Amino acid sequence: MITAKVKWAGDMQFIGQSGTGHAMVMDANPDFGGYDSGMRPMELLLIGLGGCSGMDIVSILKKKKQDIRGLEIKVNAQQAEKYPKRLTEISIEFIVKGKSLSEEAVKRAVELSMEKYCSVKATLEHSAKIIHSYKIENVD
Amino acid sequence: MITAKVKWAGDMQFIGQSGTGHAMVMDANPDFGGYDSGMRPMELLLIGLGGCSGMDIVSILKKKKQDIRGLEIKVNAQQAEKYPKRLTEISIEFIVKGKSLSEEAVKRAVELSMEKYCSVKATLEHSAKIIHSYKIENVD
Repeated sequence: MITAKVKWAGDMQFIGQSGTGHAMVMDANPDFGGYDSGMRPMELLLIGLGGCSGMDIVSILKKKKQDIRGLEIKVNAQQAEKYPKRLTEISIEFIVKGKSLSEEAVKRAVELSMEKYCSVKATLEHSAKIIHSYKIENVD
Repeated sequence: MITAKVKWAGDMQFIGQSGTGHAMVMDANPDFGGYDSGMRPMELLLIGLGGCSGMDIVSILKKKKQDIRGLEIKVNAQQAEKYPKRLTEISIEFIVKGKSLSEEAVKRAVELSMEKYCSVKATLEHSAKIIHSYKIENVD
C-alpha cells in the first residue's frame, strides 16, 4: 500500500507528507489565492512520471554496463479544456548522456520503462496519451 | 501546458523541477539502490490528489462562508500486483475542522471537488477506482 497525508496550512498552502516520511509544500497561483510558494498538484504527476521512468532507465543502463553520466527528462502535458481538466496528452523526452553509449541499449531501456516497468506511466496512460522520445549525447 | 524537468543526481536520486519553478528530491528505497532521501515517484500521485482536492474544498467552503479551521486528507492506494503495478484503488478521506460547520456544505464541497473540479482525481480515476469519505470535527 502507498500512503500519504496532506494538511492545509492556510490560504492555498498545503503540506504533503508521504508514507516514507518526506514532506513538501504545494501552493496555488496568486490568481487562485495562492502565494506560489510550492508546486501545483498537477505538476506532481509529471514529476512523478519523470522520476519513475528515470529510475528505471538508470537501473537498466547500469545493468547493461553502460557508462551513463547524465539523464535529463522533459515532460510536457496538455489538459482537457473543460473542468475537471484531466491530463489528455503527455510527451516525455529522455536526454541520456554518457561515454560510448549503445543506442540499442538506450532505446531498449526507454522501451522497458515505458512498456513494462514504470508504474506512474502505467497509471497516467489510462487518462493521457503518452508519447516518448530520447536523445543520446555522447561525452568524451 | 504543464511542464516539468527531472534531472538525475546520481544513484537513485532525482531532482524534479516544476514549470512554476519549484524543486524537490525523489529517491528510492535502499532495497532498490536508493538512500531514502526523498519521496518515491508513486507517492507524488497521492500527494497531488490530496493537494488538488484540498484546494478545491477550502475554496468552496470559504465561498460558502464556512468557518473552516483545518483540513487533513489521508490517501491510501493499492497497486496491481504485477509490473507495471499501476494504481488500482485509492481511498481518500477528508477530515474537515471548523466552527459550526454545515454538514451539507462540507458534503457538497467534497462532491464538487471529486466530481467536477479536481484535475488530479479526473486523471487518476481512469486507472484507479477512487473512493472518498469525510469526517467533520467541530471545534469550540
